[in-house]
Amino acid sequence: MIFPWTKKTDAQTPTADDSAPFSNYRMTVRVELAQRTGVFAQVATALAEEGASLGAVDLVSATRTKVIRDITFDAKSEEHAKRVLERLNQLPDVRVIAASDQIFILHLGGKIRVSGKFQIKTRNILSMAYTPGVSRVVKAIAEDPAKAYTFTCKGNSIAVVTDGSAILGLGDLGPEAALPVMEGKVLLFQQFAGIDAWPICLRVRHPDDIVHTILALSPGFGGINLEDISSPRCFEIERRLQAALDIPVMHDDQHGTAVVILAALTNALKVVRRQLDQVTIVVIGLGAAGTACCKLLLAAGVQHLKGCDRKGLVMDEDAETLRNHRHALHEFIRYDEPKGTLREALTGAHVVIGLSTGNVLTPDDLAVMAPDAIVFALANPEPEISPELALPHCRIYASGRSDYPNQCNNLLAFPGLFRGALDVQAKTINEAMYLAAAHALASIIPEAALSEEHIVPSVFDKKVVPQVAEAVAKAAITSGVARRKKKDLEEEVPPA
Amino acid sequence: MIFPWTKKTDAQTPTADDSAPFSNYRMTVRVELAQRTGVFAQVATALAEEGASLGAVDLVSATRTKVIRDITFDAKSEEHAKRVLERLNQLPDVRVIAASDQIFILHLGGKIRVSGKFQIKTRNILSMAYTPGVSRVVKAIAEDPAKAYTFTCKGNSIAVVTDGSAILGLGDLGPEAALPVMEGKVLLFQQFAGIDAWPICLRVRHPDDIVHTILALSPGFGGINLEDISSPRCFEIERRLQAALDIPVMHDDQHGTAVVILAALTNALKVVRRQLDQVTIVVIGLGAAGTACCKLLLAAGVQHLKGCDRKGLVMDEDAETLRNHRHALHEFIRYDEPKGTLREALTGAHVVIGLSTGNVLTPDDLAVMAPDAIVFALANPEPEISPELALPHCRIYASGRSDYPNQCNNLLAFPGLFRGALDVQAKTINEAMYLAAAHALASIIPEAALSEEHIVPSVFDKKVVPQVAEAVAKAAITSGVARRKKKDLEEEVPPA
Repeated sequence: MIFPWTKKTDAQTPTADDSAPFSNYRMTVRVELAQRTGVFAQVATALAEEGASLGAVDLVSATRTKVIRDITFDAKSEEHAKRVLERLNQLPDVRVIAASDQIFILHLGGKIRVSGKFQIKTRNILSMAYTPGVSRVVKAIAEDPAKAYTFTCKGNSIAVVTDGSAILGLGDLGPEAALPVMEGKVLLFQQFAGIDAWPICLRVRHPDDIVHTILALSPGFGGINLEDISSPRCFEIERRLQAALDIPVMHDDQHGTAVVILAALTNALKVVRRQLDQVTIVVIGLGAAGTACCKLLLAAGVQHLKGCDRKGLVMDEDAETLRNHRHALHEFIRYDEPKGTLREALTGAHVVIGLSTGNVLTPDDLAVMAPDAIVFALANPEPEISPELALPHCRIYASGRSDYPNQCNNLLAFPGLFRGALDVQAKTINEAMYLAAAHALASIIPEAALSEEHIVPSVFDKKVVPQVAEAVAKAAITSGVARRKKKDLEEEVPPA
Repeated sequence: MIFPWTKKTDAQTPTADDSAPFSNYRMTVRVELAQRTGVFAQVATALAEEGASLGAVDLVSATRTKVIRDITFDAKSEEHAKRVLERLNQLPDVRVIAASDQIFILHLGGKIRVSGKFQIKTRNILSMAYTPGVSRVVKAIAEDPAKAYTFTCKGNSIAVVTDGSAILGLGDLGPEAALPVMEGKVLLFQQFAGIDAWPICLRVRHPDDIVHTILALSPGFGGINLEDISSPRCFEIERRLQAALDIPVMHDDQHGTAVVILAALTNALKVVRRQLDQVTIVVIGLGAAGTACCKLLLAAGVQHLKGCDRKGLVMDEDAETLRNHRHALHEFIRYDEPKGTLREALTGAHVVIGLSTGNVLTPDDLAVMAPDAIVFALANPEPEISPELALPHCRIYASGRSDYPNQCNNLLAFPGLFRGALDVQAKTINEAMYLAAAHALASIIPEAALSEEHIVPSVFDKKVVPQVAEAVAKAAITSGVARRKKKDLEEEVPPA
């Protein structure tokens, strides 16, 4: 097999500057060029020689002697972008007027806004949408709070809540720093599933305070998406909220990830012609995602599952903070072996699912696995092992990265999960709904189209959200947690 | 003076059915009519005879024998609408197929939505707006949380928060029932001031819990608008939040109302050619609005102020729950008389401001006031005294109703107050900003245009929000609570 990224054969732990130029480091530079043939070619050559990737070139103004252009290029890192700008400024016929970083430009003033569904242009509409007319709707909901689903935004709204304790792979950076991520999530909920989400970044850390705050603010929302809350606190918080609330509460880092993994694994096993209940699976990393992944795999029928951290099987307990959490795992992980190294756990295994940190697996670790091994190296931003190193020892490789094939992206799951739950006004979100989502997601790729490099659909595949949502809604109805079957809201307007 | 509403001379306490047909009770009825000349005239006649007001008439379909039409009419009450529908159904050539209540139709699925500021159509944009690109913005904000104002929605977002304890004039109906009102407020913030507000309805009641919840959820918001929280709890909640937070916190029922009253009074005094520091003002009702109104009037220079409830001057203390609150009022209300009846308080007064309940004032109460009396009867939905009864005994009358002249509507204040505060990233909202807002609002009507019936601008006057906002922003800068002077956000992008 030839993959485009196998060109980089020597990159075991790629650093930013080793990688290709990337939209993460997209710069737009305004330059003044002498009005003479060949000057722009100097710029293009300088960019090429520095390894930057040229994008849009816009003309701002031109006189007989000068041309002003906005030139956009992708760099490999912030340092690289600076070097490129310095190089441009050293060209004799070029002057850099200004440079702007497109990621920051994109984030100016935030990524989301609120809008009204109609315009208030007259006193009549004002008196219907606000006082005094709104009081008739208030009274109807006061008599029957379930009517909030019909006559307010509740039925299509979720809160995207974090405490900022585990932001992406970056750690505990506080609620303000979490806001751009939560806004991004809100943007995705809106554009992929038409859900009106709003970001809520909490300045509290104790699970009691987080639970009390979310319970307090919950009445206006049809669901709660927990995000980037550190493990093991996230388990208790989710469990207590689910017990207390009659709306779906889901920690996406756990269950969104688990759903995508189960879908990808389902398809990968089809490619290698193995059965879920017969393979041995090793999960590395038993934080939020790893724990949920183990639970869902067992619910799906996995019989041979080993949970590890990077030191080995989970019975090797050493840290007090993790012991209670791991102890809880004993209830559902049926160990084949109670102790041992990671290498021992991998011996003869068919599948390894990494949800830990970058570069914890070596080619030798994979060499002891069964033939046609499946490797999901899902740590971000660096996978547990790069595809270049893994592929000599496995048949299928998946990661969280968009620049490798088989990207396992939560975006494949969370919009459809909440869309389906909201569509039937679900009272909770349960394992049956997660399983249904995973199977619907897997089935989007026709069996004939499955291959080693194609086990998950594209996040831009228009079938993903509707099919996942429909499966989730059906599972909610079947499992008895739906308030309604999907129908036109207008049917619920009281007869005049 | 002739006013349009003086036609109803016998209506002391108008009930719904006495009033004119109204968009609050707007119905659309789908009818099947025989295809014959004169049948629609029967419908129109029946509506007229029942006192309903005919609106839009749409053709749905027509055959040689039947016509189906959607007919919209305004009724006077729900009961009246039912009678009209029964009457239509009794017409020999008319069959009512369906009827719908337009207020509820307008509220279907809620009044607000979230939208993205750009489309995520490519992997490039996805990786810039979400992972991995967003992590660069996360790191920038983690280093300097103030950057959240520049690179997230925080700088233009406010939370509209209630506990549902004092919804409109309806009382304590719980958080779900408050949601349509909060959504209406969000809609107004958006359309009048371009602010991205989101409704938060709390299922907690103790001031400690409300304060803790709002503190916890505050980091993502540039301001907090408290709404419909009952008195006296609202005072403590606002005070504690203001002390703890570095963003503006305003209970609109208090300060929005006070700002509009001060603006209206400023203009009313110009009409009667009196000075604010020389008139005697009686405020009736010392709840949230009345208390804030007293404070702001004193800050504006009022020297002779009397606070009353409907039983008389505030020194007549009788209820334990109110005593502490009233005691606090002693600090800033300088009584002319320590005790007495409402009638005694009004004797010789130049201005009465009612913020209590309907119909607590009689013509005889007003008869004892000074000549050219100013009467603000602001209770909702029924004013303290109707204009028909008041005007023989006063020169200027204002109320909260849109069907009388001089409507004092908070919508004149809150959008501009928060717009101005957000524009300068204010750390709080203070008395100087309220005074500036009131004076800016008053000055929108040129002196030559002032009259007994024109002391406040229309809520649809496009000058209101920008002029109030500009005055508030300037006052924030002058009083030292602005983080920035208004400038282009783009200036804050770090140089590449």
